[in-house]
Amino acid sequence: MSALLLNADMGESFGPWVMGLDEEVMPHVDLANVACGFHASDPDTMRRTVRLAVRHGVSVGAHPAYMDLVGFGRRSLACSVSEIENLVLYQIGALAGICRGEGIRLGYVKPHGALYNDMMRDPEKLAGVMRAVVSFDPDLPLMVMSTRDPASVREMAQREGVTLWLEAFADRAYDGEGRLVSRREPKAVHHDPEVIVDQARRIALGQPLTAIDGSEFVLEADTLCVHGDNPESVAAVKAIRQSLQEIGVAP
Amino acid sequence: MSALLLNADMGESFGPWVMGLDEEVMPHVDLANVACGFHASDPDTMRRTVRLAVRHGVSVGAHPAYMDLVGFGRRSLACSVSEIENLVLYQIGALAGICRGEGIRLGYVKPHGALYNDMMRDPEKLAGVMRAVVSFDPDLPLMVMSTRDPASVREMAQREGVTLWLEAFADRAYDGEGRLVSRREPKAVHHDPEVIVDQARRIALGQPLTAIDGSEFVLEADTLCVHGDNPESVAAVKAIRQSLQEIGVAP
Amino acid sequence: MSALLLNADMGESFGPWVMGLDEEVMPHVDLANVACGFHASDPDTMRRTVRLAVRHGVSVGAHPAYMDLVGFGRRSLACSVSEIENLVLYQIGALAGICRGEGIRLGYVKPHGALYNDMMRDPEKLAGVMRAVVSFDPDLPLMVMSTRDPASVREMAQREGVTLWLEAFADRAYDGEGRLVSRREPKAVHHDPEVIVDQARRIALGQPLTAIDGSEFVLEADTLCVHGDNPESVAAVKAIRQSLQEIGVAP
Amino acid sequence: MSALLLNADMGESFGPWVMGLDEEVMPHVDLANVACGFHASDPDTMRRTVRLAVRHGVSVGAHPAYMDLVGFGRRSLACSVSEIENLVLYQIGALAGICRGEGIRLGYVKPHGALYNDMMRDPEKLAGVMRAVVSFDPDLPLMVMSTRDPASVREMAQREGVTLWLEAFADRAYDGEGRLVSRREPKAVHHDPEVIVDQARRIALGQPLTAIDGSEFVLEADTLCVHGDNPESVAAVKAIRQSLQEIGVAP
Repeated sequence: MSALLLNADMGESFGPWVMGLDEEVMPHVDLANVACGFHASDPDTMRRTVRLAVRHGVSVGAHPAYMDLVGFGRRSLACSVSEIENLVLYQIGALAGICRGEGIRLGYVKPHGALYNDMMRDPEKLAGVMRAVVSFDPDLPLMVMSTRDPASVREMAQREGVTLWLEAFADRAYDGEGRLVSRREPKAVHHDPEVIVDQARRIALGQPLTAIDGSEFVLEADTLCVHGDNPESVAAVKAIRQSLQEIGVAP
Repeated sequence: MSALLLNADMGESFGPWVMGLDEEVMPHVDLANVACGFHASDPDTMRRTVRLAVRHGVSVGAHPAYMDLVGFGRRSLACSVSEIENLVLYQIGALAGICRGEGIRLGYVKPHGALYNDMMRDPEKLAGVMRAVVSFDPDLPLMVMSTRDPASVREMAQREGVTLWLEAFADRAYDGEGRLVSRREPKAVHHDPEVIVDQARRIALGQPLTAIDGSEFVLEADTLCVHGDNPESVAAVKAIRQSLQEIGVAP
Repeated sequence: MSALLLNADMGESFGPWVMGLDEEVMPHVDLANVACGFHASDPDTMRRTVRLAVRHGVSVGAHPAYMDLVGFGRRSLACSVSEIENLVLYQIGALAGICRGEGIRLGYVKPHGALYNDMMRDPEKLAGVMRAVVSFDPDLPLMVMSTRDPASVREMAQREGVTLWLEAFADRAYDGEGRLVSRREPKAVHHDPEVIVDQARRIALGQPLTAIDGSEFVLEADTLCVHGDNPESVAAVKAIRQSLQEIGVAP
Repeated sequence: MSALLLNADMGESFGPWVMGLDEEVMPHVDLANVACGFHASDPDTMRRTVRLAVRHGVSVGAHPAYMDLVGFGRRSLACSVSEIENLVLYQIGALAGICRGEGIRLGYVKPHGALYNDMMRDPEKLAGVMRAVVSFDPDLPLMVMSTRDPASVREMAQREGVTLWLEAFADRAYDGEGRLVSRREPKAVHHDPEVIVDQARRIALGQPLTAIDGSEFVLEADTLCVHGDNPESVAAVKAIRQSLQEIGVAP
């Protein structure tokens, strides 16, 4: 059984504005999704965040987004496929440049917010993201949302020549199709630490999850998305980490 | 005698706004200084410009600037040395990412506008730029302004481990210290094509130029800055190119 | 019969980048839709454009848009209704400030590009725009697209207390529902100057237009949208103007 | 003896990023300097901040700045006088538009950060700011730094037709010329609450302050700059307020 890596969004400060408890959460994760200046971060914040990741031996991933600082990249922007391909390439490159300043290589790519949602809905946009990643570095993994049946995404990845990392969530409810329940719905987000840790263990062990419609399904996952927004979420990260280490699936 | 390469600013369009005759001037230069999104350009414009450069076998250089689209990077912004180091690294990386999308490597770095002027005036800022370039790629040349006595810049470059390319101008008058006469002064810019071509040949052949105070000096140069703003400047580029080819110092 | 006013987008330059033949087209229109810095323009361009309008006795309207310079405000951005209300208010105010610098008052509001399209499709977004306009100045007219049956829009305007100006197009084909045929369709845009002038006259005289499905309908209109992008469109503006003057419906 | 009004920077959040304890400090000040989107804030933050000010009967002032979100408007940008005039007019107008949305009028103008410092150093830039304020509304006061001898600033204000509000600081040391000691110097900032309250009272009562060189001078002031960055500064605001009320110089 391979390790289930923990990934968290980092470097989401911007200029004088601070966001996230990067210092607190960095020691407990494996993968840092670092904002690239389009929805958050700036060259100085990126440098500081990469330095922090290096200090903790955490792999740095690019977290590209639509250009929308005010909306934090959470609002869909009607970009064409080639616009998406180019903005991903630009942002990957920018963070890779900052990584070189700290003597490391970029580790992977995970699109952010509305771009992430849009690529999961629109195969042409996903293909555009894949082309950007492969042309930048054919060995660079791309993180995408795991679903009940990831076969079509896997086929596309194979066709485009990109390595996929499937991402699951321990603190979110899934619907019967293995998709995240919208945050607008009640019960979309788990708050009970025990529920969160239990879901993390099930995902790690390949045990079935129960969807909100009562059906069961197994979710393939290479990595688990965790959060460092506040003390509660950092505590949850530690609890998940410890639980995964107990069952031998965390580094 | 080594070649005197011609460099021109390119990719200075932005979104729907067009600037420069890139298509017309690209066939006649060796080096394309491509804007990186801070003073001009955007991911799509960068991609298009790199593609055009590739088609004509022109080397692509990063043209990083202060973040100031409205002012086109021509207004000095009071950045710290580390801010400069990081914004240069970010922009180099971003363009290098776009270059990978077109299957080429970034060729060199030439800071733009107010950043270029500020680094030529302030050795600490120049050192910051050098550190950014070297940490990105120790083989990447940095283009700086040639002056009457480039010894101190050469020393700093050797200390920082960066390769320098000295840049001269055929269409600008120099003062007695081998510096460009300010554009605010009369006679700062040559408009007569014969004068421009003659100055280019002198620089290429290592013959002395006459400063506005009547003194003579030889200007070391690896590359000549030319412009593709309008039909007149494109014609000047062709004339310079032809003249340099006649004396065997152009590729 | 009241006048059919000509409106054109203006002040679409940005920093060093020039767009549109504002100087050429300004003498021939009644209403200048001035970009407010979110999709185009900047404080200096706005000032220059307002000054030009004042010189020609042209009324200045605010042309607010989504914040998207690279995409020129043409890409839909998933903003909430309150975000739309506030960004419209901000941009109206900004241009009104510049107008005061030139001693005039803002004349009207016409949303731009994707914001215009989105408000015509989504009544809640249109109501948000109306609330912004009314709260800024209850006497400020709002320009909206005329359709075959503008009753529902008129009702909403009355409810919100805003004055409407209905806008029609002389150079665009309409479908059977009185909506513009999408630019992606063939025959969406008229290029023949005679066809354009004829359509302008019909709109001005209240005569029926023929939709692409062969049906006929009368389009109510207070103003006609014209363009100053290039010499051909400026010539069309002059021809439309002259024709409307001949039939006594232009100022 | 007229009241010494308390002013504080507000609305310095930006998109998802929060800055400042606006809710906590608003009840204790008279004047809210609201950021206008160039160094901080956005249309939604501005709306929320104006609404909060209205609820507490606090006057809203425009806090215009250089366009530099990453640097929070603290880095000098080499703008021309007319660029400054226009960016001030744009930002005043934008906030005035938001104010209309909440049914109030803009109360005054106080430039921010590097723009404030630059206008206090360069009379032409100050005149440009004054022209913007007067052309927007000749009754709108402009807040400027009080110095030992404000005669020349007063003369300029009279010439330009603008009402001045002189601003003093209770938590900053002054030098012998009545200028703020640079933050880079030790003892530039007072941290002892008693010292701060004492300096506020002296300013309010027209009693002399002691400069760092030991000399004494009286500082004219219409308003005192206070801060709502953190719990300590909010506590200081309350203490100052109470002290001024005791001596009858606070509303």
